[in-house]
Amino acid sequence: MVWNTNLRWRLPVTCLLLQVALVVLFGVFVRYDMDADPHWIDKKEAENSTSDLENEFYYRYPSFQDVHVMIFVGFGFLMTFLQRYGYSSVGFNFLLAAFGIQWALLMQGWFHSYYRGNIRVGVENLINADFCVGSVCVAFGAVLGKVSPVQLLIMTLFQVTLFSVNEFILLNLLEVKDAGGSMTIHTFGAYFGLTVTWILYRPGLHQSKERQSSVYHSDLFAMIGTLFLWMYWPSFNSAVSNHGDAQHRAAINTYCSLAACVLTSVALSSALHKKGKLDMVHIQNATLAGGVAVGTAAEMMLMPYGSLIVGFICGIVSTLGFAYLTPFLESRLRVQDTCGIHNLHGIPGIIGAIVGAVTASCANTDVYGVKGLTQAFGFDGFKTNRTPSMQGKFQAAGLFVSLAMALVGGIIVGIILKLPFWGQPADENCFEDAIYWEMPEEPKSTVLHPEDSTLKPSEP
Amino acid sequence: MVWNTNLRWRLPVTCLLLQVALVVLFGVFVRYDMDADPHWIDKKEAENSTSDLENEFYYRYPSFQDVHVMIFVGFGFLMTFLQRYGYSSVGFNFLLAAFGIQWALLMQGWFHSYYRGNIRVGVENLINADFCVGSVCVAFGAVLGKVSPVQLLIMTLFQVTLFSVNEFILLNLLEVKDAGGSMTIHTFGAYFGLTVTWILYRPGLHQSKERQSSVYHSDLFAMIGTLFLWMYWPSFNSAVSNHGDAQHRAAINTYCSLAACVLTSVALSSALHKKGKLDMVHIQNATLAGGVAVGTAAEMMLMPYGSLIVGFICGIVSTLGFAYLTPFLESRLRVQDTCGIHNLHGIPGIIGAIVGAVTASCANTDVYGVKGLTQAFGFDGFKTNRTPSMQGKFQAAGLFVSLAMALVGGIIVGIILKLPFWGQPADENCFEDAIYWEMPEEPKSTVLHPEDSTLKPSEP
Amino acid sequence: MVWNTNLRWRLPVTCLLLQVALVVLFGVFVRYDMDADPHWIDKKEAENSTSDLENEFYYRYPSFQDVHVMIFVGFGFLMTFLQRYGYSSVGFNFLLAAFGIQWALLMQGWFHSYYRGNIRVGVENLINADFCVGSVCVAFGAVLGKVSPVQLLIMTLFQVTLFSVNEFILLNLLEVKDAGGSMTIHTFGAYFGLTVTWILYRPGLHQSKERQSSVYHSDLFAMIGTLFLWMYWPSFNSAVSNHGDAQHRAAINTYCSLAACVLTSVALSSALHKKGKLDMVHIQNATLAGGVAVGTAAEMMLMPYGSLIVGFICGIVSTLGFAYLTPFLESRLRVQDTCGIHNLHGIPGIIGAIVGAVTASCANTDVYGVKGLTQAFGFDGFKTNRTPSMQGKFQAAGLFVSLAMALVGGIIVGIILKLPFWGQPADENCFEDAIYWEMPEEPKSTVLHPEDSTLKPSEP
Repeated sequence: MVWNTNLRWRLPVTCLLLQVALVVLFGVFVRYDMDADPHWIDKKEAENSTSDLENEFYYRYPSFQDVHVMIFVGFGFLMTFLQRYGYSSVGFNFLLAAFGIQWALLMQGWFHSYYRGNIRVGVENLINADFCVGSVCVAFGAVLGKVSPVQLLIMTLFQVTLFSVNEFILLNLLEVKDAGGSMTIHTFGAYFGLTVTWILYRPGLHQSKERQSSVYHSDLFAMIGTLFLWMYWPSFNSAVSNHGDAQHRAAINTYCSLAACVLTSVALSSALHKKGKLDMVHIQNATLAGGVAVGTAAEMMLMPYGSLIVGFICGIVSTLGFAYLTPFLESRLRVQDTCGIHNLHGIPGIIGAIVGAVTASCANTDVYGVKGLTQAFGFDGFKTNRTPSMQGKFQAAGLFVSLAMALVGGIIVGIILKLPFWGQPADENCFEDAIYWEMPEEPKSTVLHPEDSTLKPSEP
Repeated sequence: MVWNTNLRWRLPVTCLLLQVALVVLFGVFVRYDMDADPHWIDKKEAENSTSDLENEFYYRYPSFQDVHVMIFVGFGFLMTFLQRYGYSSVGFNFLLAAFGIQWALLMQGWFHSYYRGNIRVGVENLINADFCVGSVCVAFGAVLGKVSPVQLLIMTLFQVTLFSVNEFILLNLLEVKDAGGSMTIHTFGAYFGLTVTWILYRPGLHQSKERQSSVYHSDLFAMIGTLFLWMYWPSFNSAVSNHGDAQHRAAINTYCSLAACVLTSVALSSALHKKGKLDMVHIQNATLAGGVAVGTAAEMMLMPYGSLIVGFICGIVSTLGFAYLTPFLESRLRVQDTCGIHNLHGIPGIIGAIVGAVTASCANTDVYGVKGLTQAFGFDGFKTNRTPSMQGKFQAAGLFVSLAMALVGGIIVGIILKLPFWGQPADENCFEDAIYWEMPEEPKSTVLHPEDSTLKPSEP
Repeated sequence: MVWNTNLRWRLPVTCLLLQVALVVLFGVFVRYDMDADPHWIDKKEAENSTSDLENEFYYRYPSFQDVHVMIFVGFGFLMTFLQRYGYSSVGFNFLLAAFGIQWALLMQGWFHSYYRGNIRVGVENLINADFCVGSVCVAFGAVLGKVSPVQLLIMTLFQVTLFSVNEFILLNLLEVKDAGGSMTIHTFGAYFGLTVTWILYRPGLHQSKERQSSVYHSDLFAMIGTLFLWMYWPSFNSAVSNHGDAQHRAAINTYCSLAACVLTSVALSSALHKKGKLDMVHIQNATLAGGVAVGTAAEMMLMPYGSLIVGFICGIVSTLGFAYLTPFLESRLRVQDTCGIHNLHGIPGIIGAIVGAVTASCANTDVYGVKGLTQAFGFDGFKTNRTPSMQGKFQAAGLFVSLAMALVGGIIVGIILKLPFWGQPADENCFEDAIYWEMPEEPKSTVLHPEDSTLKPSEP
């Protein structure tokens, strides 16, 4: 299986065409949201608002920046664990995310921020665009090392589109709550990516096996990604929640869940090794599963102990997944999941959707208060007649829709990516930066420290 | 001295037991603070508050995230300077901090947020939990490379407990001010850790000496830790200060002190080397001493030049400590302080406590204004009769209490950790990841870049 | 050309003298801004303000911390791409920035925050000080590897001074808008640095050529710098904009421009290589040009598509600059620009100034509203008679003033730095940490993993 990996014309043309299209579409459609428009001063006066702080910017911007770091440094560096694929991990993630956020601003804008012929963009749109791209970063983890940047751009184009449709179905038609995206981002992203990699199955991948592992320093680089994901996850799950208590609660629940998840991940990692040694793969990945799994319920009354229980379970399930499920998927189901996203985003995403459905259906006015319940779930306007138990069922329906969209979408996109002219690497050249990157020369030999050719100091 | 370092059952059982206990205790005790509860909407209406921004979340959350980064990336990477201990530095720090924040939420909650049978948790609790764990991270620096993760979890369990008691004595009984924790976090953490490492003295540690140094890239990883600590320290010292001017002032003072500290650290580092070369150890550590030493006084009227002077002195003292005091402590007092925390947290912590006591006792209404003075030191309610000079004496008393708690607690915990069944490494295996981590294979040889096995490009 | 590089007395004396001078000047001049002073409580009452959030701290502090990360981690790590110059890149950047922010607080304070004999310092001053130092970090990129830390401190001393004068001329005399500093920071910093390196031309630099390149891991470290700069650039360009919509808009425009810039940088990088491979230098640098080039116009009504166009063009121009202009500058104009700042800050800075001038001159009340236009450009008070088209001309004048200041200042400072006693390295010792840093020993050989000398586990 030999392909042409020289991307000299394909990659530039793809990038430039996409970017020109984006410029044109932005020119036609995208305008500033009222809070980012100079006319905001008139709105402020009309509303008798005395404080500039009421601008949405101040509610969301710090969370936005945290999410931004997760997408670019978090996901980018998490995938640098491979010994010879650091440039591609960080660089391709950078490329696909930079494209994806622009396309997501449009797609999500048409669905959610369309007003009088224009998309009105504000800070919440930026966060949602980053979220959407997060699901592409998840899927990237499954195909890491086996696809070309052209394939990644095409995958991003389609996945962002499907994501936005799925998100619209869930949030607007089913009216489910999914602040941290257990369903829309993680479940959808993971099963989409797994389906794509299943279609792209490479029977000869073992030829690149010696590069599909880490070296000492690449694992430390990956920990930068892990930690920035872990630390900022409370911002991720709370970034688009309702102002005030919901945002506050989402951050607390995520903080708790992630902390518990670390302890059970470490416990299982040690228990699974015959000498009790820890495995960096588990520490880098399973410790994050708790954040995925409180994505839906974080803004609900999950309670701090509920968050701990979710994190507790996910650390165990995720670590077991890395130990047993990933090898099984690869050998039996022909799913080659480079980063083990099934364990970090797939199963925990499903768990998160279920936790969300259960938590929603248990909601009542004792716990939330009358006004609190209405506000938390938006039980007013069109949703006046909805009860918590109905909400729970809709939440569950959301999970199935997400899975179905991921599978169907993944098959279609996988087939498109299987076409032989996208510049994908041969089986023996997977997980290798040198295919797509100009590499620095290896340093000649151990660098000798030249004695300083300096004069003797004349000073005392 | 040969111990069994196979942690296969000890580490998992410890982690799981602790986490189960935490789940149960959270279930019994921990609830959301009013600002994170759906009933907040009722409170808002009762108070005629029109703005969601009055939720405590918006005052503290950005600072919280900065502190969070300091604990996990800052301390974690600062300790990666050792050539073969990067996994453990980052990984064990991750583990102990994830456990510690949960336990701190409980311990500090019982002391400070207990209301009608429950602990009410909000964003300020999250910050304080991170602070508490910060003192454990400090102590970890002293024993780095010489203890097992099981020992670290046990140390964390006890240290968080003692920290909370000490903090309660200082803040609630002595009513001292210590926003940035010069006393509660740094002095306590440092002398606790030094006492523990003194009890755990290893006469045969020289057998691991060749690994107790850095390599080129490990020093760069450590600089990631240094810089995130340095940059976010203004958030650390201001995170729990009073709203408004106090928080603002604490950030400015810390910024100034840290800047000055860099210049004097560099000056001393160069002056101490016979060829005037800089030592990475000093740049990584002594540059941070200025942040420690304004911890207590940052929110007071220390004045910008006062902050510069504190930073100036601490850069010098800390660098001299690394050059002369650390070797002396090791050879004469049998205190093996891996990271030199005595120079970064111990002495600067004491300086910070003294600076705080002096600054407090000099407070007057000329500088603070009448209302300002009352608000800055809480001279109302139970403290109505307290004068600035009394406050200064109480501050000084706080330092001695912290030192006493650290020494007594350190001895007890050190003795517990000396028991031979915690999985600690032998003297010749210290500072070595391979004891507790599955290691990647070394790459075979210099990786050859295979010529791309690609077709010749058919495009022009 | 052999110089004495032993800095034992020169560096310490320089650092200590500068720091002592700063302490004295701070003592005489620097006080807290009202918002950071305990008397703020009185001001609040006088203004009937009920919310502590009206303190400027809450408007600016999150942005400040992002900018702070860009200066210290962003610029510091961006320059670690050289194989043997990581300590110096991060460490000297740390040193010069720590000195520079203090000196900038004074210089900018005298020009902008001087009130009744004192400089009043608040969070906005901290941001502006970081901005000022940003221009020094830019210039550092041109001389990287070829100067001593003493030279850097002297360059910082002069450059901060000149920056502040230039900034005063632009912002106060010409009354131009330059929120993100396309002119004041990037254009000025770049051409200043290029002029200095032109004066310091080293004909024998080829002797250090083998170290003027990257190794695999040094490029990954550099990507940490790139990404933190890229992610936080929206905060950079919006940090000192007017409250509310202007800050909001500046963040959106910068986000858009940077995203577009990534795609065109990748496109050109691939197109310029005969096998279509990407070059890390382009990905690390050209992707950031979009942030530079919307610096002036970000807070104006550039429109999202306008931002995309700016980013589109800058990615192309910057990458072409690295491929063709940098070699030309070095061989023909004797400008040795280590980091290629001409492509990242020079040309994009000029483009940014032009974009700003055009955007300003196109402003009208249709787009901004009557009040919006007045507020956006400050067309009141002394500027009542100014029209948008006049504003555009003043903007253009600001560019020329910045270029003139940079060239004249750069020549003077370059001549000062050419004096032979500053400890600069010989031509054959450039780009080498070992000249100024104590280096760790190279690890003996491939580290063998010792078999654990542990007892057989007695547990089951």
